[in-house]
Order: sequence, then structure tokens, then C-alpha cells
Amino acid sequence: MQLQEAILTFNEFLDSYKKDHLKSRLLKPVDYILSLGGKRLRPAIVVWINQLYKGNVNDGLLGALAVEMFHNFSLVHDDIMDEAPLRRGKETVHSKWGNNTAILSGDAMLVLVYKILSQLDEAKLKSSLELFNDAALNVCEGQQLDMDFEELSSIKMEEYLTMIGLKTGDLLGASFALGALLSGASQVDIEHLYSFGKKTGIAFQLQDDILDLYGDQKKVGKQTGGDIIANKKTALWIRAFEKADSRQKAIFEKMRTEANSTTKVEMATHLFDQLDVRSNAETIKSEYQKEAFDHLEEINLDDTSKKMIKAFAEDLLNREF
Amino acid sequence: MQLQEAILTFNEFLDSYKKDHLKSRLLKPVDYILSLGGKRLRPAIVVWINQLYKGNVNDGLLGALAVEMFHNFSLVHDDIMDEAPLRRGKETVHSKWGNNTAILSGDAMLVLVYKILSQLDEAKLKSSLELFNDAALNVCEGQQLDMDFEELSSIKMEEYLTMIGLKTGDLLGASFALGALLSGASQVDIEHLYSFGKKTGIAFQLQDDILDLYGDQKKVGKQTGGDIIANKKTALWIRAFEKADSRQKAIFEKMRTEANSTTKVEMATHLFDQLDVRSNAETIKSEYQKEAFDHLEEINLDDTSKKMIKAFAEDLLNREF
Repeated sequence: MQLQEAILTFNEFLDSYKKDHLKSRLLKPVDYILSLGGKRLRPAIVVWINQLYKGNVNDGLLGALAVEMFHNFSLVHDDIMDEAPLRRGKETVHSKWGNNTAILSGDAMLVLVYKILSQLDEAKLKSSLELFNDAALNVCEGQQLDMDFEELSSIKMEEYLTMIGLKTGDLLGASFALGALLSGASQVDIEHLYSFGKKTGIAFQLQDDILDLYGDQKKVGKQTGGDIIANKKTALWIRAFEKADSRQKAIFEKMRTEANSTTKVEMATHLFDQLDVRSNAETIKSEYQKEAFDHLEEINLDDTSKKMIKAFAEDLLNREF
Repeated sequence: MQLQEAILTFNEFLDSYKKDHLKSRLLKPVDYILSLGGKRLRPAIVVWINQLYKGNVNDGLLGALAVEMFHNFSLVHDDIMDEAPLRRGKETVHSKWGNNTAILSGDAMLVLVYKILSQLDEAKLKSSLELFNDAALNVCEGQQLDMDFEELSSIKMEEYLTMIGLKTGDLLGASFALGALLSGASQVDIEHLYSFGKKTGIAFQLQDDILDLYGDQKKVGKQTGGDIIANKKTALWIRAFEKADSRQKAIFEKMRTEANSTTKVEMATHLFDQLDVRSNAETIKSEYQKEAFDHLEEINLDDTSKKMIKAFAEDLLNREF
């Protein structure tokens, strides 16, 4: 099975779930956010890994749906916190229905996650819940750290990597691990796949940070330097701030308060180039990618499958958009 | 075991849980809301019923903690939606830490609910989750209806009873049912206890509606007519609006926009007395109470235990404050 096939299988399952379960007034916004699309990478990974380990298809689909529901729950609530008007080019749930409905339908989504998980094969229920709960709590911890960091004048690279590990890495780790767990894979394989996914998630976020400033605007499809304009402390920003001398530190302050976006992005590009932070971020990214692949090597799956997983991660991490 | 003893047992368990699990920045608000107190009726019911059925103490305590965590989660998010500054005389979580932290720590609480449930005896895990998830989703549906009703000029008594059944009744029903389920009681007993608790919860809310206007202010400990002042459509309001002739309907509109609280409450008292709605509400309450007791009669528990449960419900429903 290829990942692409897993996406199709999952989307079919999601469509039938939406038709059967999301008709009440409370759950309309749930149907809406799930219908905005997205790459469906996380759920497809659950289905795919489960199939590579020859697991039960239905359990794989349920696990996938739980992961996708949780991901979308976090989008609905994060969008309220970020006051984001748009998601995938459409109105966010809170823009469309108001904050109260967005809070409440997000809550309902989190309950639905567990309603879906409770349908899993009873022999795998407890371990799936434990895996999932820890990842879910980590995602919350990551979001809390992200909000805390906004209040700080600077943060350490180590702290940033911890935060993106929690906010982005754990759910990707859980997606790989859940696929394996639901197929009855060994605990050793489950843990290696978790680490593989988590480290791949961190590398993915670092790639995202780099592309924000150095990506091909046409391919990325969004404004160059969006993170700079929003004063986000990305891996580039953090490394640059660490390396800056006192004269350069003063430029950071000017940059932060610069009202003209184009000037702001130009200042950042110039400064970051001077400090050569792109290559630093690429190095950290490569380290995580390498560590991820080391974990992948350890799992007890045929070489063809491992190669497919590796190719998928390489595609993901070498994308230019 | 008496209910009072169950409260003490639960509070000890809660204290040790708080000490061991709620130390991170994310979970500080969780510790805070759980430390504001409250009667702990729901968790005590789980522990108590579990003991009356001679269940495993640890499972009873875990079920109780999950129910109390869920109840407090719903308070944190409801307080944001209601823009309530105070809860039990202290700052609400969102007043103290801001809306974003309140949304996020509430989300973390909901994950903690399931982290706690996942520790239950594996043989009871699936059925406990199913019971709990349905109740949790009903609580969300009830909150959605409550918000929808605010936008309507009038609602039917039947709709109101459905709403309070979902918003208040289901979690009380689930508390009784979970106590029984965790002790290995029969499905028949579990269902009767659910209905007993749900109907008792509805009767309790009707009592609350009546006391708001007709309670002894000193005993109730809050302003008489708080619901009237807030333009809430309670059972009294709904029945009065149903019975009102066109001249009296006009008084409703004057009452809604009256700025002076004392005048507003006097207008309501006069109108509601004229229409004799208190006795109507008492009648509906008695019907639910009777139906609840009919369910209690059906369960397979010794007479002493049944009498204790009945006495508890009578105390709860005949309180004057």
C-alpha cells in the first residue's frame, strides 16, 4: 500500500462518518472544519502503517479518524486563541459562528475523539488510550509554551525545539505509533516509530521556518517572511538573536517595530544572511532527520516498507513549498 | 457507607492527585479550579454507589475523579462563554489568566478525564467510556441548546426540560450509573440508576428555578430573582409566558427592558403569582421526582441502601437554599 492509497481510503471513511454522525446543531461546525480539506497526512499515516504491519483495517481507520478529529479540534481552538480569521482560505469556525460556538464545538470534537477510540478492538483499547492521551496532553503543553514564548523577549533554541516537539512532533509520532500499535506490532517498534515521527515532525517544522523566508514564494503560496511580519520567534530568529552582537541586537528591536512589511522582511533577510543562520537551521534539521531515520532502521518491518516510509519522510522534508 | 463518608474519601484522593499531577504551568489553572471547593456531590455519588454495590474502591475513586474533572472542565469553559467574573466567590479561570489559558487548560482537563478513565480495570474500560462519552456529548448538546434559547423570544416547556436534562441531568445520571457499572452491577441496574439520576437532576434544576424567586434569601445566600434580572427563561418564566394573556404578554416586554432590578423582580413576582406558576413548576418537579423514585425501586440493592439513596435525593430536592 502507498500513502496515496491510504489517503483515499481514509477520505471515503471520513465522508461516511460525517454523513452519519455530524447532523446536530452542535456538530455542524465539526462537519464544516472537517470539510475544509487539508492533506490528511496524519490519518493516512495511521492507515498506511497499520496496513504495512498487516493490521485490521477497521481499527486503522478508527485510529486515523481519532487523530484527524483531534488535529482539527486543536485547529478550532488554536484559531480562537490566535484570533485567526481564515483557515485554508475559508472562514475559521469562530469567525463564522462566534467564539462560544467554537469553544463548545471544539469540546464536542474532543469527546468525539474518545467516542471513536472507544470503538477500537477491546484488547488494544487501553494501550491506544494511553498512547493518545500522552500525545494529546503534550500538544496542549506545546501550545501553552508557544503562548508563553510570545511574552518573552528571547528564548533558547533548546526551548524552541522542545516546544515544536510537543506542539507538532508528538501528534505525528502518535500517528505512526498508533498505526503500529493497532496492528499488534511490538512495543519496541511502536516506540521507535513514535520517535521517528516525532523527530520527523520537528524537522518538518524547521523546514517550515526556513521556507517562510527562503522558500520560493510562488511555490510556497504565501507571503515571504510571514513569520517575520508576525514577530514570531522561529529557529532562524532565535539563532540570529543568539549570534547577534550588540549593534545587530539593536536591529532586532527596530525590526520588531517596523510598520512596513517589505522593509521588515528585507531587514530580516539582510541580517539573517549576515549571520548565516539558514545553514545553522539546516544543520539542526538534518540532525533530527538523521536521528529519525536511525529509529526507522530499528523497526522490524520488511525493507520495501521501510524504504517507502523513508522516501515519504524525505519528500516531506525536502519540499520547497 | 454514608454519602458524607464518600465525600471525605474522595477529597483525600483528590488532594493526593492534585499534589502528584498538576504542577506544570499548563495545569496550574486546573489545580486552582479544583481547589475552589464545591459540594463534590457527583464524585461522592460515584464512590458511594460503588461501595453500596461492594465494588473495587480504586475504580470507584478513579470514576469519581473523572466525573469531577469533567464537571470542572465544563465550569471553566462555560464561565468563558457566560463572561462570568466569579465562581464560588473567587475569580474565574479566564478572569485570572485570560481566555486563551482558560480555553487551553479546559482542553487539558478533558484529556485528563480520559487519562484517569484509562486507568480503570480493563474489563470495565470500554463500557465506562461509552457511558461517559454519551453523557459528555449530551452535556455539550445541552449547553448548545441553552445558548440557542437565549436568542429566542420564547421556548416551550418541553424544550426547556430537554435542555436541563442534557445540561444537568445526564452528568448526575452518569455519576450514579458509573458507580454501579464499576462495581459490576447488572445492565438493568445501571440503566435504572442512570434514569434515576437524570430525572433527579431535572427535578433539582426545577427546584433551583423556584428557589431563585421564592427561596428564603438568607438561606439561599444570593439575590432573590437573579434569573429574572438576567432575563433567563426558567421553568417559571416559560409557564408564565404560556399562560399570559395579551395584556400580560406586554408586561413581559416591559420586564425584560426594566433597568431597576428591584422593580423588575417585583413585576415578575406579581405576574408569576397572578398566573400561579410556582405550583405548576412544583407539579412538574414532583412528577420527575416520582419517576426517579420508580426507577430506584427497580434496582437490585438491599432496602437499607435504597432508603439511603432515596433519603439523599429527598434532602437534595427539598432544600430551601
